[in-house]
Amino acid sequence: MTAPDGLARFSINQMTVKQLSLPELAETCGKLGVTGVGLWREPVQEFGVEAAAKLVRDAGLTVTTLCRGGFFTAIDPAERRRALDDNRAAIDEAATLGTDTLVLVSGGLPAGDKDLAGARERIADALAELGPYAAEHGVRLAIEPLHPMYAADRCVVSTLGQALDLAERFPAEQVGVCVDTYHIWWDDLAPAQIVRAGAGGRLHTFQLADWTTPLPEGVLTGRGQLGDGSIDLAHWWRLVDAAGYTGPVEVELFNAELWAREDGAAVLGETAERFSAVAGEVTAG
Amino acid sequence: MTAPDGLARFSINQMTVKQLSLPELAETCGKLGVTGVGLWREPVQEFGVEAAAKLVRDAGLTVTTLCRGGFFTAIDPAERRRALDDNRAAIDEAATLGTDTLVLVSGGLPAGDKDLAGARERIADALAELGPYAAEHGVRLAIEPLHPMYAADRCVVSTLGQALDLAERFPAEQVGVCVDTYHIWWDDLAPAQIVRAGAGGRLHTFQLADWTTPLPEGVLTGRGQLGDGSIDLAHWWRLVDAAGYTGPVEVELFNAELWAREDGAAVLGETAERFSAVAGEVTAG
Repeated sequence: MTAPDGLARFSINQMTVKQLSLPELAETCGKLGVTGVGLWREPVQEFGVEAAAKLVRDAGLTVTTLCRGGFFTAIDPAERRRALDDNRAAIDEAATLGTDTLVLVSGGLPAGDKDLAGARERIADALAELGPYAAEHGVRLAIEPLHPMYAADRCVVSTLGQALDLAERFPAEQVGVCVDTYHIWWDDLAPAQIVRAGAGGRLHTFQLADWTTPLPEGVLTGRGQLGDGSIDLAHWWRLVDAAGYTGPVEVELFNAELWAREDGAAVLGETAERFSAVAGEVTAG
Repeated sequence: MTAPDGLARFSINQMTVKQLSLPELAETCGKLGVTGVGLWREPVQEFGVEAAAKLVRDAGLTVTTLCRGGFFTAIDPAERRRALDDNRAAIDEAATLGTDTLVLVSGGLPAGDKDLAGARERIADALAELGPYAAEHGVRLAIEPLHPMYAADRCVVSTLGQALDLAERFPAEQVGVCVDTYHIWWDDLAPAQIVRAGAGGRLHTFQLADWTTPLPEGVLTGRGQLGDGSIDLAHWWRLVDAAGYTGPVEVELFNAELWAREDGAAVLGETAERFSAVAGEVTAG
């Protein structure tokens, strides 16, 4: 399958069109000429990991990432052991699906805890255990800095700088970063950190989402469709390319309005169109 | 009026107990031994600026800050002129109230605009006009970095580093910063920036609020009561003190639940208790 020009690097993250089943997703990708998908563990597990791997392989799709591992910040030893086991399973699943990148959401503060630096150290401890295991399986771990508004409850890694401080303790073939415009667009230090990530071979994946307001309650499901918000998406795309990134560009939108639309194929079509427009801007740029 | 020990540096920001009228606020402060208040322009204007100044003076209260000037990011010339005029009025009001600090919320992106760097430059342009005017009136402008989740719609200054980059273009007696735990607690670079602010004589005010989740829709009215959230408030307080800050510590909570309580005096009492607890932690070191 060859993608149309503007979609050459497009990968649709499954979460953007979660109303589509895996077979529907594969079929719609085929119709639109979309060649890359980012998958999530839960729907893949439900479908069966081997079956999902076969389905996407047969459809000629590349699995660009698996989302997500992580949640490394627990203090309780039993909980920590469970998290490590679960992350080894995620690495196995990524290998089975044929993707080289497992995206990590590192985890928030444990209940009652206020020690961000300590939580970040526990992430490093987990990476030390998981990095070699991942590399043995041909999988790279990609630390995703999440927007600082998630620091308490989802991810204490809030900037690309923090993510790289963690990643650089390990070999680049084990641990890198995931750059998502939604999380870093406000950060004037991020462009320099993108250069740093590229120079170190740690720019493992790049994702697009736009910033729209007002944010919804809980701030999880308001990621904007490309072009609807405040982020100069082409600007960030050019920055990662200038840093040496040549990989797929994933669109991952958690968006309650998109999810509410019954026709998931139409949402994917619209997303592909929006992507093409940004890609055109980048090329014109 | 002498404040009880744990309240020696306490200032209650009017917005925390906005259900109280100005006379009620002054009376409640008197009963509790609270000696400092941070005021907001709208309720002060409604009461009359001169009348408000007399009221707080007669009650023996110190006005620690006036909130807020700012909103400097418009592109339209007429709108920019209006913003400058309004900020000169805010400086006049601050001088009348006898406070030396006007807190600035710098403004978000204009509709349809995606240029954060350009917006930050327009803030600098405004400060160049307003800084001398403020200093002539004995008022310092305090740029408040707002949490990155407000970058699009309220304030393109998202970190203490960015705020200082702006402030340092001007003399310290004209422009400094406002450090609010709610906005900076996630930032591992903030401690070094607090040292930088202190060394430059630009630590103009310090505010406390806690971080609680889930965030409400619009993310404006969910600032946590001290002790209810994830922020190590005493840690940040010690950092600003170590950087040379000896001024008032303001509590500014935008909290829909606190506002819904009819008995504003009870809310102020509770806030004073929480403050004392944090102050005790700071002293215990």
